[in-house]
Amino acid sequence: MRITVWNENLHETRGDEVVRANYPRGIHGAIAEGLAAHFAGGDDVIRTATLQEPEHGLTDAVLAETDVLLWWGHIGHAQVADEVVAKVHERVLAGMGLLVLHSGHYSKIFQRLTGTTNSLLWRNEGERELVWTIDQTHPIAAGVPSPIVVPRQEMYGEPFDIPVPDELVFVSSFTGGEVFRSGVTYTRGLGRIFYFSPGDQEYPVYHQPEILQVLANGIRWAAPRQALRAQTAQNAPTDWFLT
Amino acid sequence: MRITVWNENLHETRGDEVVRANYPRGIHGAIAEGLAAHFAGGDDVIRTATLQEPEHGLTDAVLAETDVLLWWGHIGHAQVADEVVAKVHERVLAGMGLLVLHSGHYSKIFQRLTGTTNSLLWRNEGERELVWTIDQTHPIAAGVPSPIVVPRQEMYGEPFDIPVPDELVFVSSFTGGEVFRSGVTYTRGLGRIFYFSPGDQEYPVYHQPEILQVLANGIRWAAPRQALRAQTAQNAPTDWFLT
Amino acid sequence: MRITVWNENLHETRGDEVVRANYPRGIHGAIAEGLAAHFAGGDDVIRTATLQEPEHGLTDAVLAETDVLLWWGHIGHAQVADEVVAKVHERVLAGMGLLVLHSGHYSKIFQRLTGTTNSLLWRNEGERELVWTIDQTHPIAAGVPSPIVVPRQEMYGEPFDIPVPDELVFVSSFTGGEVFRSGVTYTRGLGRIFYFSPGDQEYPVYHQPEILQVLANGIRWAAPRQALRAQTAQNAPTDWFLT
Amino acid sequence: MRITVWNENLHETRGDEVVRANYPRGIHGAIAEGLAAHFAGGDDVIRTATLQEPEHGLTDAVLAETDVLLWWGHIGHAQVADEVVAKVHERVLAGMGLLVLHSGHYSKIFQRLTGTTNSLLWRNEGERELVWTIDQTHPIAAGVPSPIVVPRQEMYGEPFDIPVPDELVFVSSFTGGEVFRSGVTYTRGLGRIFYFSPGDQEYPVYHQPEILQVLANGIRWAAPRQALRAQTAQNAPTDWFLT
Repeated sequence: MRITVWNENLHETRGDEVVRANYPRGIHGAIAEGLAAHFAGGDDVIRTATLQEPEHGLTDAVLAETDVLLWWGHIGHAQVADEVVAKVHERVLAGMGLLVLHSGHYSKIFQRLTGTTNSLLWRNEGERELVWTIDQTHPIAAGVPSPIVVPRQEMYGEPFDIPVPDELVFVSSFTGGEVFRSGVTYTRGLGRIFYFSPGDQEYPVYHQPEILQVLANGIRWAAPRQALRAQTAQNAPTDWFLT
Repeated sequence: MRITVWNENLHETRGDEVVRANYPRGIHGAIAEGLAAHFAGGDDVIRTATLQEPEHGLTDAVLAETDVLLWWGHIGHAQVADEVVAKVHERVLAGMGLLVLHSGHYSKIFQRLTGTTNSLLWRNEGERELVWTIDQTHPIAAGVPSPIVVPRQEMYGEPFDIPVPDELVFVSSFTGGEVFRSGVTYTRGLGRIFYFSPGDQEYPVYHQPEILQVLANGIRWAAPRQALRAQTAQNAPTDWFLT
Repeated sequence: MRITVWNENLHETRGDEVVRANYPRGIHGAIAEGLAAHFAGGDDVIRTATLQEPEHGLTDAVLAETDVLLWWGHIGHAQVADEVVAKVHERVLAGMGLLVLHSGHYSKIFQRLTGTTNSLLWRNEGERELVWTIDQTHPIAAGVPSPIVVPRQEMYGEPFDIPVPDELVFVSSFTGGEVFRSGVTYTRGLGRIFYFSPGDQEYPVYHQPEILQVLANGIRWAAPRQALRAQTAQNAPTDWFLT
Repeated sequence: MRITVWNENLHETRGDEVVRANYPRGIHGAIAEGLAAHFAGGDDVIRTATLQEPEHGLTDAVLAETDVLLWWGHIGHAQVADEVVAKVHERVLAGMGLLVLHSGHYSKIFQRLTGTTNSLLWRNEGERELVWTIDQTHPIAAGVPSPIVVPRQEMYGEPFDIPVPDELVFVSSFTGGEVFRSGVTYTRGLGRIFYFSPGDQEYPVYHQPEILQVLANGIRWAAPRQALRAQTAQNAPTDWFLT
C-alpha cells in the first residue's frame, strides 16, 4: 500500500500553540506515524505532502505512486491550486482512493467530487462525540467499538449538504444533542472515497487508536482494485463484443 | 384518502394507568383524532381497528377500502393471526401504503416485509429525543422543524437490525447519547412503507403536532399512486410489446 | 410551473438538414411545444433559451423565474461560459429542478453536479431503443408503457461513468444488445436532477408522446418543494433548538 | 472457505434428458466441480446438499460448517420444509453468505429475505443473454468481460419484483430486447446475499468459465467477515459504553 497524507499545514506553521501541542510534527506527521503500525509491510510506503511544497507536494511522480490519498484542510482551501485539484480529481476517477478528513468537507477536491457545498452545522466547545456504527458489516467499521468515544471534539451537525452516500457507515452524536453522518462512502469513476469527520486540530483525536483503526480500514477499502485507467467514451461497432 | 389506524390495544384494555392517562380513547383513538385535522376532505375516511375485533378488524372489506394502514403493536405481536398478516402483506405488495409505528418494528408484518429481526437497543428512562431531518427534500419532512423535540421518550438506539433503507429521512439522538434511524422508507412490490419510531404508550408523543404532521406527511407519501394489483410472473412471447 | 428549455441550438443554426427536418423550430422549440399540452394552467410558463443569446439566455431574471430547467447540448459544451454554469449550479443547489437530456450527459453543469466524466459507449446506426421501467412506483414512470419503443435512436451503452443514482427509473436496451441506465435521479443540495437519455438531433424522438410524458413527469418530480435557499454553514450555540 | 451447494435435484432425478445431458452429475455437481478450481486451498471445503436428503441435507452440523450457501431450486420450492427455511434464514441473519441462483428467485428463503414475490417476465426460447457490468468497481465483477455472452438462455425480464438492491452489479439484455437486473446484492442482518440469474437446467450455462468466475467472486464477497452471531434486542443502562 502506498499512502500519501496531505495536510495544508497552516495551523502548525503559523504557530497555533494548541495545535503544536497536540501535533508537534503536524497533523500529517501524527497520522503518518499512527498508520505506520498498520502498514508495516515491505511494500508499504507512507508519505506526507503539504500545501507549502511545490505543487503542494502532489507532483505527477507522487500521484503516480499513491494508491490512497488522505486530505486534511481547514483554513487554506482557497490556496490550493486548481491545477492540482484537477490532477487529483482525474486520478481519483481513474481509481486512486481518497480519504477526506474532518474540515476537508469544504475542500475543493471534495466539492468537485460531490457537486455539493458540503456545508454543515458546527460549534466548537469541546463536546464529547460518540461515533456509532450503522453498517455493522462494513469493512471500515471492523475492529472498532460502537460507539467510539471521542472525549472532546468540535461539533459537526446536520444538515450536512452532501449527496446521499453510497454507504452510511457511521453516525455521530454530540453532547449538545446534534447528530452527523460522520462516516460516508462514495464511488466516482473507478475511485473510492471515504469521508470521516472525527479529527480536529484543537483536540488530539488522531492519537486515538480507534480513530487510526478506522483510517487504516478506510485506506484498505479505498485502495484500487484494478489498474488505474481513465474513463472515456468509446465508439462501438455492432457486435464488437463477439470478436 | 382512506386511512385505517390499527392498534393492538392491549396496554389500554388491561388498564395500564399511565397509558390510559395519555390515551383515554386508546393510542388508535388519539392518532385518528390527530389525523382528522389533516384529512378533513369529503372523500377522507379515518377508521380504527384493533386486535380484539374479529379478524383483528382487518377484514377483506376493510382492507379493500384502505389506502394507507398504520400499525401500532408492542406486547401482542405473537397474538396477531398469521392469516391476517398474510393478507396485509399481499395488500402492501399490491400497492397499499403502510406506516409502522414505534414498537411495531417487531411486528410480524414488518419482519415479513424487511426479512430481518428489526432488533434494537433500548432503555426506558423518559429521555429527551431529538428527531433530526436528514433528507431535507423529502416530502415526509415537510413543514416540521429539525430537530423535533420530544421531551420524554423511550430510547431506541443502534444497532437497528433493518435492511439498508431506500431513504433515510430522520435520525434521532437521545439524552444518553445513542442515535437511531427513526424515519426510514422502503418499497415492497407496489407498496410504500414508512417506519417512524417516535411514539410510545407511556408518553404523550402522539399528541405533539409535529409528530402528527409527520404521520400525515407519511400517509400522503405512502398512498397508492396507481390501481392496486398483484405482482405476478408473466410468460411473454417474442415482440409482445409491439402489438 | 415555470419551465425553461435550454438548447445549444448549434445543429439547427449551422443548418444540419436532418435536424432541421426533424425540428424545424429547433429541439428547444419542439420540446416547448410538446410540453404545452402538459402545462396549460394559468400559472404555467414555458420559456426557451439558447447558447447564442446574451448570457446564453440564462440571466439572473430568467433563472429567478425558473422552477425547472431542461438542458440539451451536444457539440457546444465547451462554449458554455463558466459563469453561467456556476449560476445554474448555485441555483440547483438552492432547489431549482434540472432535467439533463441525451448528449447533455457531457455538459459542464451535469459534470459539475455528478463529479464524474459521464462518459459512455455509443454508436449511431439508428437502432431501436426499448426504454424499460425499473421503478414501477416512481412518479416519473407514471402513465407510460414499459417498454417505450423508440424506433430509431443513437445507441448509448454501459459503462456509463456516473455516480450510483439515487433512483434508477429506466434501463434501455438497443438492437445491438447494449444496455444503458437511461433514466436516473440525483439530489444535490435542495435541487432534484433527472437525467433522461432518449432524444437525439437526428431522430424525431421528442415528438413521441411517451417521451414528452416522461419529460412532463420529470418536471413535476423535479419542481422545488419549498422556497429556494442557499445551503450554508451555520454556527449553532448549545440548545439553539430550544428557543 | 466452506461452501455448500444446494440443489432441489428434481429435473435430474426425474430424468429430464436435456438436463441430464447438460449436467450428468446434477447442477449441484457441476457447480461444485466448477468451483473446485477456485477454492483449492487446504481449508477449502465444497459440499453439496439436495432436497431428497434428510433435512434436505442442511442439518445443523452442515450449516454450522458452511460459510456460504448456494441455492438452486425451480419446480420444488413448495417441497422445501419451512423448518429448514427458518434455520437457513436465521443463519443468514447471523452472518452466513447466500448465493441465490436463477429460478431460486422464487425460493422460500429468498422471498423471506426480500419480503417480495420476486416475480418476473420470462420466455424460454434459447435466446442469447448479454450480462453487462454496471458497477465496474464491484469485486463480484472482477475478472469477467462486460458483457459476458451466454449463447442460449431462458429470458428473465423486468418487471422483477424485488426490493431496490443495495448494489446493482449486472444488468442483462436478451435477443428479444428485454432487460433484467441479473446480479444484485442485499444485506440482511450480518448476512450478505447475492442473486445471480444466469444459469438454467436446459442450457450448459454453469460450464462457462465466466459464470463460474462470478460465482467464485460472489462467494468471496458473501463470506462472513466476523464471527456469526444472532441479532437481538439489548437493554442498555445509561452510559453503558463508558465502562
